[in-house]
Amino acid sequence: MQFYDEETTYLAIPGPVPIHPSVYREVSKPIYGHRTPEFRKIVAECIELLKPLFGLRKGLVIILTGSGTSAMDAAVRSFVEPKDKVISFVNGKFSERLAEIAESCGANVFRVDVEWGKAIKPELVEKYLDKHSDAKFITLTHNETSTGVLNPLHKIAKIAQKYSVTVIADGITAVGGTFVKQEEWGVDIEISGSQKCLGIPPGLGFVGLTEKALQMLENKKTYAYYTNLRIYLETWLKKKDFPFTGAVSLIYALHRSLKIIHAEGLENRFRRHAIMAEALREGIKALGLEIFAESGYESPTVTAVRYPKGITDDEFRSLMLKYGILVAGGQAHLKGKIFRIATMNLIGPREILMILSVMEFVLRKLDFKPKESGILAAIEVFRRYGI
Amino acid sequence: MQFYDEETTYLAIPGPVPIHPSVYREVSKPIYGHRTPEFRKIVAECIELLKPLFGLRKGLVIILTGSGTSAMDAAVRSFVEPKDKVISFVNGKFSERLAEIAESCGANVFRVDVEWGKAIKPELVEKYLDKHSDAKFITLTHNETSTGVLNPLHKIAKIAQKYSVTVIADGITAVGGTFVKQEEWGVDIEISGSQKCLGIPPGLGFVGLTEKALQMLENKKTYAYYTNLRIYLETWLKKKDFPFTGAVSLIYALHRSLKIIHAEGLENRFRRHAIMAEALREGIKALGLEIFAESGYESPTVTAVRYPKGITDDEFRSLMLKYGILVAGGQAHLKGKIFRIATMNLIGPREILMILSVMEFVLRKLDFKPKESGILAAIEVFRRYGI
Repeated sequence: MQFYDEETTYLAIPGPVPIHPSVYREVSKPIYGHRTPEFRKIVAECIELLKPLFGLRKGLVIILTGSGTSAMDAAVRSFVEPKDKVISFVNGKFSERLAEIAESCGANVFRVDVEWGKAIKPELVEKYLDKHSDAKFITLTHNETSTGVLNPLHKIAKIAQKYSVTVIADGITAVGGTFVKQEEWGVDIEISGSQKCLGIPPGLGFVGLTEKALQMLENKKTYAYYTNLRIYLETWLKKKDFPFTGAVSLIYALHRSLKIIHAEGLENRFRRHAIMAEALREGIKALGLEIFAESGYESPTVTAVRYPKGITDDEFRSLMLKYGILVAGGQAHLKGKIFRIATMNLIGPREILMILSVMEFVLRKLDFKPKESGILAAIEVFRRYGI
Repeated sequence: MQFYDEETTYLAIPGPVPIHPSVYREVSKPIYGHRTPEFRKIVAECIELLKPLFGLRKGLVIILTGSGTSAMDAAVRSFVEPKDKVISFVNGKFSERLAEIAESCGANVFRVDVEWGKAIKPELVEKYLDKHSDAKFITLTHNETSTGVLNPLHKIAKIAQKYSVTVIADGITAVGGTFVKQEEWGVDIEISGSQKCLGIPPGLGFVGLTEKALQMLENKKTYAYYTNLRIYLETWLKKKDFPFTGAVSLIYALHRSLKIIHAEGLENRFRRHAIMAEALREGIKALGLEIFAESGYESPTVTAVRYPKGITDDEFRSLMLKYGILVAGGQAHLKGKIFRIATMNLIGPREILMILSVMEFVLRKLDFKPKESGILAAIEVFRRYGI
């Protein structure tokens, strides 16, 4: 018996995530010319609505037509010059990608590996910045999508400021789902993507830049073109426009989604994400499974879970899919060892209870006897927060 | 904290129900002229695809642009003449409506009231047909949406045939969700609507007619116009068209939904509905609540549940809605006494587990301590059916 198909499956993968129907309608709307005052006005509004999500009052958010990786590439390549010393803190697949991009710029990359699942600690950052007084940049993920770890970016940025080092942070699964305060924290460059906590389909990348980053950009000479933020900045300053054709339908979607995000209010939104992730984690622990992320550094947007003995990735995720929930597996060496569930954008108690009860069903089918009720543990979290 | 809005709420009411995204796309498609061979072809295909859902190989399904009630009105008014003796079996709001329509036709309606929540039994029908040898019609609901009772229509129709009485059955929440075999059972007139088990938005009504019913129609003189099936039949026979403008977008949606229905297969679909309703009932009973329908006659598409002591309709349904599930209350004298949940169209284990776990959450918030785990009882039903 087949119950679900691609269009009725619930997306619990860490992006793309469930999208509001009114945002889908924007995607399917007939488009207008992109070199018009009408379209430029929408783009300008998007940028103004994006800035608070990055913690920018001044500064700018640059929008790229591309995947999150296009924004990662732009964020690194537009600043890092050949031979620049870059310290890349790697505790997952996406922080590794930042290091790879820095290397592809011809930078002198010093890579600091931290066990996947553990957080990057400020002390570790300080230790390496102290050692490498010639470092110009550090790269790290804010929220590591591959492991479900939220790195303490605010503390790390403080250390970086002390050493006058520029922070390039990948906030692809952070922006819109948790606090990002670039100006307050001193994170000059933060990256994001469209299909995560911003609640639209894939295809747009974002780079949040402080005033300091914008100044840095003005005098930069790099070998980039499509992912050269200087070109985007110059076009913006001159014409309030994109240098290259924007993905019009996705901009419409973004505009609508940002209105929904601000109507909820950022504090409410981030609190909701945090509580839902906590309820999910408590439910999962009650079922007898182990959270992969280091305690105290669990992400509010992605939860990675260790497979218990005897449950294979293929069996578990195939059954979850059969019963209507698409769950992500582990990446790189974590393949088969963990699974990952997102709590992004449209996430509420109904989804948490649904995921946990379907998970309980599937675990029982696989002869894993849950320790306790997952849904009762989640309900207890809701109660604690007055939900 | 607000989690859901009108567009993200799960529809657990007995129609409209969750609709496949591809069907929604049909509704939003630009429309074509309705007096064209292209559109007529789609209508003709819809009728051919509808017939098996009514259990018709010959006969015809007439489509009306109107609510389910338009089809009820047409089904009665096109056949019942003033002074005709009609026995109306009433065990809920919709069977009562059929009696009211028969009365509005000037018929001599003999109303047999059965306690709401109880089924119409063949013996009862026989008793009254035996007494009223001048009866020409009986009216009843196949599936009583107001109480969650599935009347044993196949047995009742057998009795009616014995007494040469024509059966007019309201199958609005039956057709597409459970077996309807008009020809095999001898149900000459069966009604349906679009927003239930046929999986499209409201706005279309259907009347399934056997060959015998079509013959009856040809010589009928009634005072109806918009709901006169004879006009629809004549236009169909002459031009293979609607007499009045059809709801083009809804026909597109119907065409798509019928393709989905037949791709699943009718037996599979009806079995799925039956198992999901059973899992829901077992879950609800485990929570300590009581099913309203008479045992043995529970509907596979609508489940009515008695409120336990101390839980008010307003509190319960407001909280279910707050947590993303729209549940229906009771109607007429059952207002405040029961609530109703549909298991129609896109319904699978994920939805059953979601409904039961949200219900458990809400009951606990209202200080009702569930007897046992609702989701475990549902999982046990799934296990029993090899799901």
